[in-house]
Amino acid sequence: MSGFDLYDTTLRDGAQQEGLHLSVDDKLAVARLLDQLGVGFIEGGWPGANPKDTEFFRRARTELVLGSARLAAFGSTRRAGVRACDDPQVAALLEAQTPVVTLVGKSHVRHVTDALRTSPAENLAMVADTVAHLVAHGRTVYLDAEHFFDGYEADPAYAVEVVRVAAEAGAEAVVLCDTNGGMLPHDIERVVSATAQRTGVRLGIHCHNDTGCAVANSIAAVRAGATHVQGTVNGYGERTGNADLIAVTTNLQLKLGMPLVSDGQLAATVHVSHAVSEITNLPPFERAPYVGASAFAHKAGLHASALRVDPDLYQHIDPALVGNEMRTLVSDMAGRASIELKGRELGYDLAGRPELLARVLRRVKELEGAGWTFEAADASFDLLLHEEVQGRPAALFELESWRVRTDAEGSASALSEATLELRVEGRRQVAVGEGNGPVNALDHALRQALTPAYPRLVELELIDFRVRILDADHGTDATTRVLIDTTDGERTWTTVGVGPNIVHASWIALVDSFTFGMLRCPSRAEPVAHAAVAR
Amino acid sequence: MSGFDLYDTTLRDGAQQEGLHLSVDDKLAVARLLDQLGVGFIEGGWPGANPKDTEFFRRARTELVLGSARLAAFGSTRRAGVRACDDPQVAALLEAQTPVVTLVGKSHVRHVTDALRTSPAENLAMVADTVAHLVAHGRTVYLDAEHFFDGYEADPAYAVEVVRVAAEAGAEAVVLCDTNGGMLPHDIERVVSATAQRTGVRLGIHCHNDTGCAVANSIAAVRAGATHVQGTVNGYGERTGNADLIAVTTNLQLKLGMPLVSDGQLAATVHVSHAVSEITNLPPFERAPYVGASAFAHKAGLHASALRVDPDLYQHIDPALVGNEMRTLVSDMAGRASIELKGRELGYDLAGRPELLARVLRRVKELEGAGWTFEAADASFDLLLHEEVQGRPAALFELESWRVRTDAEGSASALSEATLELRVEGRRQVAVGEGNGPVNALDHALRQALTPAYPRLVELELIDFRVRILDADHGTDATTRVLIDTTDGERTWTTVGVGPNIVHASWIALVDSFTFGMLRCPSRAEPVAHAAVAR
Repeated sequence: MSGFDLYDTTLRDGAQQEGLHLSVDDKLAVARLLDQLGVGFIEGGWPGANPKDTEFFRRARTELVLGSARLAAFGSTRRAGVRACDDPQVAALLEAQTPVVTLVGKSHVRHVTDALRTSPAENLAMVADTVAHLVAHGRTVYLDAEHFFDGYEADPAYAVEVVRVAAEAGAEAVVLCDTNGGMLPHDIERVVSATAQRTGVRLGIHCHNDTGCAVANSIAAVRAGATHVQGTVNGYGERTGNADLIAVTTNLQLKLGMPLVSDGQLAATVHVSHAVSEITNLPPFERAPYVGASAFAHKAGLHASALRVDPDLYQHIDPALVGNEMRTLVSDMAGRASIELKGRELGYDLAGRPELLARVLRRVKELEGAGWTFEAADASFDLLLHEEVQGRPAALFELESWRVRTDAEGSASALSEATLELRVEGRRQVAVGEGNGPVNALDHALRQALTPAYPRLVELELIDFRVRILDADHGTDATTRVLIDTTDGERTWTTVGVGPNIVHASWIALVDSFTFGMLRCPSRAEPVAHAAVAR
Repeated sequence: MSGFDLYDTTLRDGAQQEGLHLSVDDKLAVARLLDQLGVGFIEGGWPGANPKDTEFFRRARTELVLGSARLAAFGSTRRAGVRACDDPQVAALLEAQTPVVTLVGKSHVRHVTDALRTSPAENLAMVADTVAHLVAHGRTVYLDAEHFFDGYEADPAYAVEVVRVAAEAGAEAVVLCDTNGGMLPHDIERVVSATAQRTGVRLGIHCHNDTGCAVANSIAAVRAGATHVQGTVNGYGERTGNADLIAVTTNLQLKLGMPLVSDGQLAATVHVSHAVSEITNLPPFERAPYVGASAFAHKAGLHASALRVDPDLYQHIDPALVGNEMRTLVSDMAGRASIELKGRELGYDLAGRPELLARVLRRVKELEGAGWTFEAADASFDLLLHEEVQGRPAALFELESWRVRTDAEGSASALSEATLELRVEGRRQVAVGEGNGPVNALDHALRQALTPAYPRLVELELIDFRVRILDADHGTDATTRVLIDTTDGERTWTTVGVGPNIVHASWIALVDSFTFGMLRCPSRAEPVAHAAVAR
């Protein structure tokens, strides 16, 4: 939609989030993903101030090909008392060679005097000079009016003057920033309206989530006339985060009917959100609007019965529009309807099998009472269903025993070694594996034992391993729950293991992972070894 | 504030969250915590429908003493075609013997016909009869008008009629529910205003966060005249969760000046939020408004310099009002100012020591580049600072070697055994420990070796252990990061360990945990063993 900017600052403001560390390679990968969302602008960082960002812009020139977005460099207005053309930080902005530059300038008079230690008049000149300088060099310039709303409260005339001065110097739009995040939507609407009226300048909005209203604040600003919205993917950002650009975009498009991105771009939302999570290595928030794993997950037995009738009765949008899907949760609140729906998702037709459903329900409630969780571990639940339907568990082998040993000398890194004794297709095997930890060693030993009979195991890779100590106040009797994510390059699945020993709990999840992989993945291995050992 | 209800449904609607499992003991504990917040009502569950909830209400009568809140039982309107006095589910509501009962009734005509399969007129009778029946038995009754906003869109006359009928039958207030969570604030405001005007009935609001606007929606409803707000602590709930009652309350009190709770109750917010997290065993969301660990955590070097000038420049409220505190994050974005501020928080005066600050900064940047994170591990950072300030690391012992072995037979649970060789105060020791896992075994072995010299170690307990595989696409060369939480019963601290071997990374975090505990905890052990081994 022309005339409306979706402006992503994940790589700059988002990167200020606690726990977020991105290499230059990471930033380039994230930028490519953001482009898939259909955003108009990607703010890549602060060149000059942040060496990694200088490098990012340098490499972006040859390595980053964007289809939808334009790259923006971020920086601040010139230093007080220094000309824009003489300020090395401003020069760095130009050296980044981006089509767009976004400057942050003070618009709260107290920040000008107390934090910048300069005069209100000089600050206006800093804004005007820097904007004009960059515009003269052919850049599209945005001015982020920092602390605008607090500034408007303290001295509205000054705040508005900053806006006017930036626009007169050639800024494409002035972005009103709720830098401390303390605003509520009705006040945002009031101030944005008033500023639009007083200046006639094209306005943008940049919110933070300190009151839990960043998305609503952004929408309120748009309703009051803003035509440029800034935010981050997954709501990353300092403190409580920036406005979640995904929620803002989806709300504007699906609820307010603004055609901001194509259907395909909207449908890529969940994929991009999760892919960015993988790169940032921050666990995705399951309850995130639109993209969270739980966003369309229905638990209450009551709802499940209604959902079988018509999903629209309990969903505010069709999850497929954003690339998500409806899920039924199996839990101790599950009724037989939930089990049936879940089974259907996994490819089982359990309709008209009340005894089976009751039996599965009973097992689930018992196991969950002991600390198991199937909600996050579909693959383990699939194996449970398989066992109940087939009458016996799927098993790649019979275990006799295993042991793992980890040794370290002084401060040298430790090495783990696992030994297994088991039967594969009736034939006894002893296998050994080394690894960077007990589970990794067991993984290698198990592969050594099983790969001859199951060659496709080579494609499986463990990619994450989450441990939770349950009943922590029971000390050494605490139960440990382990979740393992495995991928075969195309599909990823999660298995669970529970018990008082973490290695044993991990072993359970590991075995389930391999079993599921061999049971469910499309090209099944030719059981070559079967012929050899049949007797 | 009289005439305004803060209504908490953590134990009922909140409990529908994926991954949330509460025992009756848990529910009673949570109720006591919610009471500390100053909420007026605690919805304890659905007696009759949910056996755990029936039990909860039974035990609550003798075991739950509430100072601020009144207990509410939740249930649905009578079944179609059955009299309220004959409906066993309604009877169960009375048997719960709560002063308050909240009924959910359909207010969306399509739900009445398609999900309930009854007539619009019968549904109105169901609402009226059940409300009247419970009022006649002396209960304060609220009616949750389910799917109200979608229902108002589909057939406003019918939705409003449900409200009128409930009020006429004696309901204290009618709570308009955005059950599917698809609303935006301006529409909430419009519909609540219109409904208030058309009926003159006292209204409440119940929102879900599917558009990311639950908090804003709740506030918009209050501004439009609602005097009863429902929500959950930590925003728990199905799908994207219910409105976060903490954020709603704090916004109404601190931003809109509504005296809903006492200063002390507001200041208990962070404590209650975290304590409830402990009980639900769901990791707290660090970026949660007001209560999140990151909510007042400042990272950018730029901000840290300004914060040294005046915290109000970058914080929208004083964190102490909600029981939180300002934190400076140490990270590769840290400037020397951040290190100094962080050091001050930990009790170090590093002002005027630029060389030291630069040295610490350099170490932090290197370590974080290798996967270490100090942001979540204050105790490890404290030890790093201690080493830089003292010129040598704090150490309880010198390590020679360690090894851990875990064995399992068949499906029996595994046992781990660790052996250590080290020097404590110059004297060589060999120690062994058994445990439910490698880290637990090392913990026991280390205690065996150290407790004679450091008796206070008996008070330390490991309570959580978080593992993250970094660089997962590097397979077995992946780096593992381990965070350990330890408590001495009064204070809890977090240490970090990083390396390719998970047991080794855990060992590092474990050793730091004990070292920190002995270094920092108030009543230091008399070093009895020192005299014995001095030579």
